[in-house]
Amino acid sequence: MIIILKPHASKEEAQQLLRQIEAKGLKPLYMPGVERTVLGALGDERVLQSLHLESHPLVDEVKPILSAYKLVSRELYPIDTRVKIGRHAVGGDGFTVIAGPCAVESQAQLDRIADYLTAHPVAAIRGGAFKPRTSPYSFQGLGEEGLKILKTTSERSGLPTVSEVVDASDAELMARYVDCLQIGARNMQNFRLLEAVGKLDIPVLLKRGMCATIEELLLAAEYIVNAGNPKVILCERGIRTYETATRNTLDLNAVAYLKRKTHLPVLVDPSHGTGIRELVIPLTRAAAAVGADGIIVETHTNPAEALSDGHQNLDPQQFDDLMSSLKPFVEAAGRSLK
Amino acid sequence: MIIILKPHASKEEAQQLLRQIEAKGLKPLYMPGVERTVLGALGDERVLQSLHLESHPLVDEVKPILSAYKLVSRELYPIDTRVKIGRHAVGGDGFTVIAGPCAVESQAQLDRIADYLTAHPVAAIRGGAFKPRTSPYSFQGLGEEGLKILKTTSERSGLPTVSEVVDASDAELMARYVDCLQIGARNMQNFRLLEAVGKLDIPVLLKRGMCATIEELLLAAEYIVNAGNPKVILCERGIRTYETATRNTLDLNAVAYLKRKTHLPVLVDPSHGTGIRELVIPLTRAAAAVGADGIIVETHTNPAEALSDGHQNLDPQQFDDLMSSLKPFVEAAGRSLK
Amino acid sequence: MIIILKPHASKEEAQQLLRQIEAKGLKPLYMPGVERTVLGALGDERVLQSLHLESHPLVDEVKPILSAYKLVSRELYPIDTRVKIGRHAVGGDGFTVIAGPCAVESQAQLDRIADYLTAHPVAAIRGGAFKPRTSPYSFQGLGEEGLKILKTTSERSGLPTVSEVVDASDAELMARYVDCLQIGARNMQNFRLLEAVGKLDIPVLLKRGMCATIEELLLAAEYIVNAGNPKVILCERGIRTYETATRNTLDLNAVAYLKRKTHLPVLVDPSHGTGIRELVIPLTRAAAAVGADGIIVETHTNPAEALSDGHQNLDPQQFDDLMSSLKPFVEAAGRSLK
Amino acid sequence: MIIILKPHASKEEAQQLLRQIEAKGLKPLYMPGVERTVLGALGDERVLQSLHLESHPLVDEVKPILSAYKLVSRELYPIDTRVKIGRHAVGGDGFTVIAGPCAVESQAQLDRIADYLTAHPVAAIRGGAFKPRTSPYSFQGLGEEGLKILKTTSERSGLPTVSEVVDASDAELMARYVDCLQIGARNMQNFRLLEAVGKLDIPVLLKRGMCATIEELLLAAEYIVNAGNPKVILCERGIRTYETATRNTLDLNAVAYLKRKTHLPVLVDPSHGTGIRELVIPLTRAAAAVGADGIIVETHTNPAEALSDGHQNLDPQQFDDLMSSLKPFVEAAGRSLK
Repeated sequence: MIIILKPHASKEEAQQLLRQIEAKGLKPLYMPGVERTVLGALGDERVLQSLHLESHPLVDEVKPILSAYKLVSRELYPIDTRVKIGRHAVGGDGFTVIAGPCAVESQAQLDRIADYLTAHPVAAIRGGAFKPRTSPYSFQGLGEEGLKILKTTSERSGLPTVSEVVDASDAELMARYVDCLQIGARNMQNFRLLEAVGKLDIPVLLKRGMCATIEELLLAAEYIVNAGNPKVILCERGIRTYETATRNTLDLNAVAYLKRKTHLPVLVDPSHGTGIRELVIPLTRAAAAVGADGIIVETHTNPAEALSDGHQNLDPQQFDDLMSSLKPFVEAAGRSLK
Repeated sequence: MIIILKPHASKEEAQQLLRQIEAKGLKPLYMPGVERTVLGALGDERVLQSLHLESHPLVDEVKPILSAYKLVSRELYPIDTRVKIGRHAVGGDGFTVIAGPCAVESQAQLDRIADYLTAHPVAAIRGGAFKPRTSPYSFQGLGEEGLKILKTTSERSGLPTVSEVVDASDAELMARYVDCLQIGARNMQNFRLLEAVGKLDIPVLLKRGMCATIEELLLAAEYIVNAGNPKVILCERGIRTYETATRNTLDLNAVAYLKRKTHLPVLVDPSHGTGIRELVIPLTRAAAAVGADGIIVETHTNPAEALSDGHQNLDPQQFDDLMSSLKPFVEAAGRSLK
Repeated sequence: MIIILKPHASKEEAQQLLRQIEAKGLKPLYMPGVERTVLGALGDERVLQSLHLESHPLVDEVKPILSAYKLVSRELYPIDTRVKIGRHAVGGDGFTVIAGPCAVESQAQLDRIADYLTAHPVAAIRGGAFKPRTSPYSFQGLGEEGLKILKTTSERSGLPTVSEVVDASDAELMARYVDCLQIGARNMQNFRLLEAVGKLDIPVLLKRGMCATIEELLLAAEYIVNAGNPKVILCERGIRTYETATRNTLDLNAVAYLKRKTHLPVLVDPSHGTGIRELVIPLTRAAAAVGADGIIVETHTNPAEALSDGHQNLDPQQFDDLMSSLKPFVEAAGRSLK
Repeated sequence: MIIILKPHASKEEAQQLLRQIEAKGLKPLYMPGVERTVLGALGDERVLQSLHLESHPLVDEVKPILSAYKLVSRELYPIDTRVKIGRHAVGGDGFTVIAGPCAVESQAQLDRIADYLTAHPVAAIRGGAFKPRTSPYSFQGLGEEGLKILKTTSERSGLPTVSEVVDASDAELMARYVDCLQIGARNMQNFRLLEAVGKLDIPVLLKRGMCATIEELLLAAEYIVNAGNPKVILCERGIRTYETATRNTLDLNAVAYLKRKTHLPVLVDPSHGTGIRELVIPLTRAAAAVGADGIIVETHTNPAEALSDGHQNLDPQQFDDLMSSLKPFVEAAGRSLK
């Protein structure tokens, strides 16, 4: 339920209403605006009816929230949310580029990559320390050693870091080392993990599951925000379809749809979304044009030697090409890089 | 098989080689270039080996065609093909906009739509006279009456016309009325229809089937070109996936992939590709950014009264918005409208 | 609209009502039963309201038809339809086995196959004369020559024949040679073809499109029945999904669902449904158990030499195994072979 | 690598070979058979070549394991594995029926359900205590209280219990209360959870992810077995496709395929696999016919009041019908109930 107060309602009067809402066992939300204050009440709306808010002298209008997700919906908060990774704000007028290798392999590797990334308007460096791999016999990441490498590279380069968390029990540890936690496609509906990162004060990059609907993605985000952490960034990374020419089918419809339904920022992962190095540039351009708030892209100084996903990694020259090719499309979208 | 001749090979010598290829039961192709002449030989490549072309004095290099499709492959023809609809060339530096209603409903309706389209850099008007509808009880189109309306509107407005052909037996009739034949998604593998339009001298807009792979689309195009008609324009119009928030999942990966594999022009249909009016503009922008050669979009002067697909039609104001929103992205892609 | 008459209503009175329905521009249906006569009225139901049938003295009850399909719905005809191919009835207590090669290759080939099929309770022999192939360079079938072979084999063996029709213009020709026309997956929504076979008096085996919904399959059947031919047999043949271990995903949910929604018989094609020879027997058993009315299966005397789909063809020994493995499941389902 | 020893090789000689394999850093496996002893060596096969096993006097044959999964493959262990839940063996000649509510709601509810299940040859009772729900606002299960209810009902009825584990940190706790841990579709690639249950000595029912390939399911099972727990039961529960008439598409191809590729038992979940109560019986029959080792099905004494998934729950009468309808198909498959 969304409760729009009359212009003259004071903050104290609003707080009093929120206490009544809370007393009914509902979750109260306080959203002061420039002209009006809006209140929210989440939970069983039948309970709320006993308050007769629609006839309350301070209330101008009462509206139900029609979507299954509430806190992440534009129905509740129409204004774009900006989420800060380090000093960089994701969302708003900037177009965010997060780049880096699939997996952290060594200090030297990550430093080399950071060196060429800092020559560009790159917002953060990504790299996996805990790798969820389909086979138990594949490289599983360096673990905490990888996190230490990320922290060292970050201090040296000034780039904030993004890395994937794969289990609730790791969340606090990771939050001590990195600036943004990524939840991967396979864990989008690992609800314990969502709740665990929802209790931390750190930005979360939530990737869409490989066969998750848009609504399921928004409900996964709702888990995090409902647990207390509003700093959620969504990410479209391609869905699984019958088409095998590309690794996944990047769903840019979903980006445009999400931007209409939620106030959270939305990134695109053109590396996993295509699985083919040559398609990363055109799909990055398309991401900027469709209204995404940025991209997260895999780069490596030597893709042929990457321990995972080498075939979709850009080398430094290709990354240069990406950035220069992207610029006019970011500007056409009325945004700027970084 | 691709046969690259030495620079000094004369036209007569090339023709002689082609006769030898033909004598072996293979399809000979003559592709003169600025610096070199390239010959093609399609069919059972084992047969060809008996000609020992690789050691022929006029032959510089012999390469197999690795893809299942041949005539439409960039392996055979690396240069972009331009296909003319009326005087408008699809492919190349222009970005083509084809617009119009889902179905031709009346002369007055189509004329009204043509009137506002001619105020924009629109290449052609679309409208269905024969409508393939899922239910036998839905409006099936006006038939030949619709074709006459299209012709009248075309003469009045100067816009060339695009309309869907649904059966091989209609192909010649339709070619007398319209400037470009569309093959719809449901008929992408109607091979008799592909062969029928392959025998005509008219551009064909071939839409991807709703669960066709990219390779199947290229092989469907190969049917048309192999039957004698090289004027094929491909069109991505969304594929069927598990996602239900949008009508289809527009596969822009496929557009980037197709542009690398084939020399044929590739359009995008953001109307069927999304099924939601509000998503047509962002996905059109993305189509321009990803490298498409244009779009085909549904417009109506009164979408609420359209006899089919009203919910995805743009009204005149929305079409204005589309064109002005599209322009900077077309320019960022190094192209121009019309 | 379904109109259930009172027990005492005479045939003449029913006819009079049907004339009133027809005069309103609706399609009248007469369905006499043992205890009651039921009438149908298809078309715009608002028109029908002006007849005030619910208060007519002969009418007991008026019910809308809720599904998009009407003539094929159990709402309209609750009793199972039996469709005869030659003297064999598909539907009812029998379990139908139709077998044969993917393509007719020669008289000798088809006769050899017929020889071992006639040793089993096989209802009909299948074989393609016109083959819809993804590539224009693949074997396209023997055409009319193949039809002649089918007819000769049929006369010699006594087996009725099933063969695929790929274009409306072939329908009449084919009906002179074969006992049942098959519409393949790629043509399920070739509406001209559906209408063409709908005008003939010959059984039609309609295969589900490879990404058609169940409702689309029923609406395709509705096209045929609405055009005048009630002899439609549906066939589930696997749908296209992300899974690549099998050629298609055989959707036996669809069979159980169809049996509840339509009175038409439903067959299963375990050859295309799996694409793997070793899976044909277990999936055939499952088809019998789930309630299918039979199967259509690919067999060849020498699968390794088959001109198409050899990898999913059963050889004579495997076909023997299929039949003996199938029998107890057919009996468990309360049916019998042939 | 699979190493088949000569018939005369002694146990001591085999152990010596295994020590050599282990010394090379590979995982040694000892598989004594009736006629021959077979050894396995998992890991980098290039390393193994330096042992020159193919010319070793005790070795008859050396074969590579071609599949990506090793321990769960029939290449390595051709014999069916039986996994015991309580005293009931899953796999082999029996057909296992596991039934119960989606969620444990109260002691009284579960006892009522157990009462009618014990009148049938049911192997175990299922019920969720920790429910992974798409929305944070849905009923999330009773938690440890639900586990206590399961244990009480089990002691009272004699039925062993199956319940879902959703996080690695719960695995040990749950193993104290229940007889079999279920890993749900959303967690099939929660690798930490797979490793955690892989360290326990308790049977694990591993459900296929809703868009997991068959190979990914087998690799998920490989994680558990590789971590030390060979008691894995696979479960096909329907995959996500474009079809919306049913909740999921039950993939019985996968069951037949799995039975050929792995020695692990395979169950089918017809409740989630269809999502429609009326389809549960026919698909259960099909599961028995296709070769599944059993089913896991949702039942409730009052489906209309179930706190989740009520529309796909069977009531006691329907469960009676299921069991009597199933029996002849189980017998046709050469198996028996319980």
